[in-house]
Amino acid sequence: MTGAAAGEEMHALVRRLYPLCRSITGDGVRATLDIVGEYLPLQVREVPTGTQVLDWTVPQEWNIRDAYIADGAGRRVVDFAASSLHVLGYSVPVHRTMPLAELREHLHTLPDQPRLVPYRTSYYAPRWGFCLAQETLDALPDGDYEVCVDSTLADGHLTYAEHVVPGRVADEVLVSCHTCHPSLANDNLAGIAVATFLARELAERQPYHTYRFLYAPGTVGAITWLARNRVERVRHGLVLACAGDRGAVTYKKSRRGDAEIDRVMRHVLETSGRPHTIKEFTPYGYDERQYCSPGFDLGVGSLTRTPYAGYPEYHTSADDPDFVTPDAMADTLAVCREAFAVLDRNRRYVNQSPYGEPQLGRRGLYDPLGGRSDAKEAQLAMLWVLSMSDGTHSLLDVAERSGLPFDTVGAAADALRGAGLIKA
Amino acid sequence: MTGAAAGEEMHALVRRLYPLCRSITGDGVRATLDIVGEYLPLQVREVPTGTQVLDWTVPQEWNIRDAYIADGAGRRVVDFAASSLHVLGYSVPVHRTMPLAELREHLHTLPDQPRLVPYRTSYYAPRWGFCLAQETLDALPDGDYEVCVDSTLADGHLTYAEHVVPGRVADEVLVSCHTCHPSLANDNLAGIAVATFLARELAERQPYHTYRFLYAPGTVGAITWLARNRVERVRHGLVLACAGDRGAVTYKKSRRGDAEIDRVMRHVLETSGRPHTIKEFTPYGYDERQYCSPGFDLGVGSLTRTPYAGYPEYHTSADDPDFVTPDAMADTLAVCREAFAVLDRNRRYVNQSPYGEPQLGRRGLYDPLGGRSDAKEAQLAMLWVLSMSDGTHSLLDVAERSGLPFDTVGAAADALRGAGLIKA
Amino acid sequence: MTGAAAGEEMHALVRRLYPLCRSITGDGVRATLDIVGEYLPLQVREVPTGTQVLDWTVPQEWNIRDAYIADGAGRRVVDFAASSLHVLGYSVPVHRTMPLAELREHLHTLPDQPRLVPYRTSYYAPRWGFCLAQETLDALPDGDYEVCVDSTLADGHLTYAEHVVPGRVADEVLVSCHTCHPSLANDNLAGIAVATFLARELAERQPYHTYRFLYAPGTVGAITWLARNRVERVRHGLVLACAGDRGAVTYKKSRRGDAEIDRVMRHVLETSGRPHTIKEFTPYGYDERQYCSPGFDLGVGSLTRTPYAGYPEYHTSADDPDFVTPDAMADTLAVCREAFAVLDRNRRYVNQSPYGEPQLGRRGLYDPLGGRSDAKEAQLAMLWVLSMSDGTHSLLDVAERSGLPFDTVGAAADALRGAGLIKA
Repeated sequence: MTGAAAGEEMHALVRRLYPLCRSITGDGVRATLDIVGEYLPLQVREVPTGTQVLDWTVPQEWNIRDAYIADGAGRRVVDFAASSLHVLGYSVPVHRTMPLAELREHLHTLPDQPRLVPYRTSYYAPRWGFCLAQETLDALPDGDYEVCVDSTLADGHLTYAEHVVPGRVADEVLVSCHTCHPSLANDNLAGIAVATFLARELAERQPYHTYRFLYAPGTVGAITWLARNRVERVRHGLVLACAGDRGAVTYKKSRRGDAEIDRVMRHVLETSGRPHTIKEFTPYGYDERQYCSPGFDLGVGSLTRTPYAGYPEYHTSADDPDFVTPDAMADTLAVCREAFAVLDRNRRYVNQSPYGEPQLGRRGLYDPLGGRSDAKEAQLAMLWVLSMSDGTHSLLDVAERSGLPFDTVGAAADALRGAGLIKA
Repeated sequence: MTGAAAGEEMHALVRRLYPLCRSITGDGVRATLDIVGEYLPLQVREVPTGTQVLDWTVPQEWNIRDAYIADGAGRRVVDFAASSLHVLGYSVPVHRTMPLAELREHLHTLPDQPRLVPYRTSYYAPRWGFCLAQETLDALPDGDYEVCVDSTLADGHLTYAEHVVPGRVADEVLVSCHTCHPSLANDNLAGIAVATFLARELAERQPYHTYRFLYAPGTVGAITWLARNRVERVRHGLVLACAGDRGAVTYKKSRRGDAEIDRVMRHVLETSGRPHTIKEFTPYGYDERQYCSPGFDLGVGSLTRTPYAGYPEYHTSADDPDFVTPDAMADTLAVCREAFAVLDRNRRYVNQSPYGEPQLGRRGLYDPLGGRSDAKEAQLAMLWVLSMSDGTHSLLDVAERSGLPFDTVGAAADALRGAGLIKA
Repeated sequence: MTGAAAGEEMHALVRRLYPLCRSITGDGVRATLDIVGEYLPLQVREVPTGTQVLDWTVPQEWNIRDAYIADGAGRRVVDFAASSLHVLGYSVPVHRTMPLAELREHLHTLPDQPRLVPYRTSYYAPRWGFCLAQETLDALPDGDYEVCVDSTLADGHLTYAEHVVPGRVADEVLVSCHTCHPSLANDNLAGIAVATFLARELAERQPYHTYRFLYAPGTVGAITWLARNRVERVRHGLVLACAGDRGAVTYKKSRRGDAEIDRVMRHVLETSGRPHTIKEFTPYGYDERQYCSPGFDLGVGSLTRTPYAGYPEYHTSADDPDFVTPDAMADTLAVCREAFAVLDRNRRYVNQSPYGEPQLGRRGLYDPLGGRSDAKEAQLAMLWVLSMSDGTHSLLDVAERSGLPFDTVGAAADALRGAGLIKA
């Protein structure tokens, strides 16, 4: 599939997922995973309410059927059916009539962005509320309003899903995207779409690493997964979010700062010519917070375009499908593809003939005509691999130190390994 | 006491101490400590002449009653009574008449600063001499002069004093200032004054560390103290000198270069907005030379305003009480206060819930309303402390890495410790 | 000998050696070593064809008596007698007549430098060929040509030579220069000349290190030497090449990058005021490739003027004796002299009186007149040596950290060692 075609298909997936009301639990998540499951076989996991997961407890499941604010004439002035953003996430049920003054305490707006509806939640403090445009609120006359949130908070399950692309080794690369946000396109339907198409691409060939794709609600979902799995298999990872806006790509390093994924991403971004930003780790943002907590301290970075909370449309109704583009998603997908190609090929070798240079010429690896100063890049790459392959340097080290393209270095390593001159 | 009031009081102390003739031993030092003792209870130590102290020996005690050069008419053209600088420190007694030509060999002037009297000593080679302005010397007619140094060099004692502010732990912070210079205000009466008022401030609250203030003659005094004390209690320290001139503050690092005091001072100076200079260690200057000698290698830096030998008034009669200001001394005092506040609060903690983030919300430490991107600084600080508290990072590390104010980080640590989430 | 005189003598040596047809084996090498042997006693080594040396085998010996291309009229249009560059190095014998079209496959030119004859070899693939100017080739009419290479490839020897200047310790400094290039002045007759005069200079005094000068063919010669010698004695080394062109001096670091020779060369070049370039190691260039192969990983750098392949005359007939100058060779010699003076004097000492400063005054090492701020450089140097001599810092570390000249630091160390205050 061409990049352009994949971009269009990912955008179509974003549009399909957009109307669903996702949260950290509930049927919106399940419906989302059902649609993703049409693209990729998923193992869906259901974890019961009350399950202890690390320092947390799986919360009650939240489902919602309807929610509105109606004026005295019965006209719905705020309606969940129009956008899942209108209801405060995890709102407890309510059905009352109250004056606007009292209602105001339950209303969330963005006074500085008066036409936009904010995204707000209250997962762990029982509340109800509505989110609406400041302009809508300003237009409401005083008087009594009927408020209704037809929701259920009850014991149930937290739902997440996995897809595993088996590799030649059991060491895993974790690609994680959060599934808990309602009608927000960049955050994180674009990430879900890129993860899905990336998994499909990887499955077409057997990669070196085993790739595990995780679709889980933010924070408690990642924590649930960490509590229930053999985390030590995860050698590298990427949190995918905000993967579709028009901004340049941003890589945020793992807490370790020099994990292999950090170096691979830097190399790929710097040598690709893409405009990009590389940021140090901060303990804020998406689920890298959990993967990089000091007890786990995994080599997991975060790939976005414009980063977390870095654009005015962030967590508002302006983060709609028009805010993300096929081209941007195709580019995010390409960055992942390029990075994982390096990651899968990166090795530490040991020169088997480390005393003096081995005679490459008699193995057909060196130009027999001497005296020329324009040593071919392939020969130079072999000399670099031989020089640095003392067991402490990886091919990525060789590429960075020599300034040669990683592919050239990888090809040199293949040739030398074929000649028995280096061993992994 | 306000900073301005403290500045005025410190300046008054400088003016009181200024006329006394201090040296590395003798009654001038005792009189100085008597006056300081009016501000602060001191433990005065007397170490006998001949005592072996490290590679040195406590010298004979020097006392001086009078010294002058008188012309043929009996008129004193150079008079110790006018300034203690006029006599070469540790001059042996002399009472002779001699022609100017012979006298010249015993005269010290500053040809490039012809109106100023230099400060000169000869502690370890027995000499006598006078210091005077070049202009004074130039005005002397040829002829015979009576020279008199009514001094005593005899077995006695070297005198130094200590004041200890007990802390909650026995680990000590050493604040050291040299007391051996005669009528020089910035070098080092200002340092003595700042140390004294700093000690009084610290005594008003029980600090975390134990603070030891040392008033001792330069070089041999510090060496005597080092020879007689349990140096291993000293975890941090500051040599205070040149603490009152109008220049910006200068911190000179310890020999280690990355001692905790070095990092604290850098942080305080960089975040305070003060103009300042931070210098690498050199084995020259004040008693940091001794504390940082390679055998001890203490984490002791040096705080001055314009540093050692860095101003034209240095070691001349122009270093008088007008050369130092109440504001400058108050500012030096404030730098010490701010630095010790950080030093006393700086700790390494260990996150007790390092696997994933602990659920701060249920402990009342996290805003229950989700979706907002303007995470409060206090919450961010808690996440940073949790992320970095793996036993290897201090709160100062957290402040520097996060860019958050140290106080915010300290408050976050207090909150987390209160919730049992981190332990020292 | 003055630098200018040495420069002229070195240039004379270059001119004498220039006409000889050197290669990796054969009588041209022997004749070269005979001439060098007039300046310096050499131990000449002959290693038989077929000897296994590391991953290589000593090749057959190549000798050549005549080679030419003659036109139909019998006129030699390309003649080995005019320049040893005209024959492809290691050409197998041939004597045939063939049309120009067929001959072309055996001709090497430089189309972009049409007046120059390139230098080409084929050591390990049996070929014959000629090198000529593109202009010469362009002027050849079609037709038949007589080609003759009167060469011998037969079992024989590989020849290299050594000269050892014994030092006070057995630890060796290796100075290596390649001897395999035919009529090329900068590459490497200038290196041979500088090495020769350097050895003569060193022999005039007993240096601290033992200096071993190696004259060997490139690659296989260095490999042969490495295979047959106790490499562990080599603590430092320098590959000398391109030592005579008008460009600024270039030092290429050893593979280790922070070997003592690397730091010494940097210090000497930076403090000498010479324009210079310091380059990181690359596994390409001269025999540093072999000495720095990961199994040996010796502290051997490479000193050139314009580096390997860095000038248009490189490996062409334009690299003739006019391309190198007496001044440039004298300057390269001076750099070596200065660097080895530092290397021979650099030591790690341990302060024997590390607690506080030792009393330098009573040992006559410190100005007894106190109070002056213009501490003499010699005193400062002693304080620096005392401060840093904890067994981990060398005198070069002291010079670099203090900013004092190495000679001043060395003199301070001598004084302190004389007083028993430091020990090696």
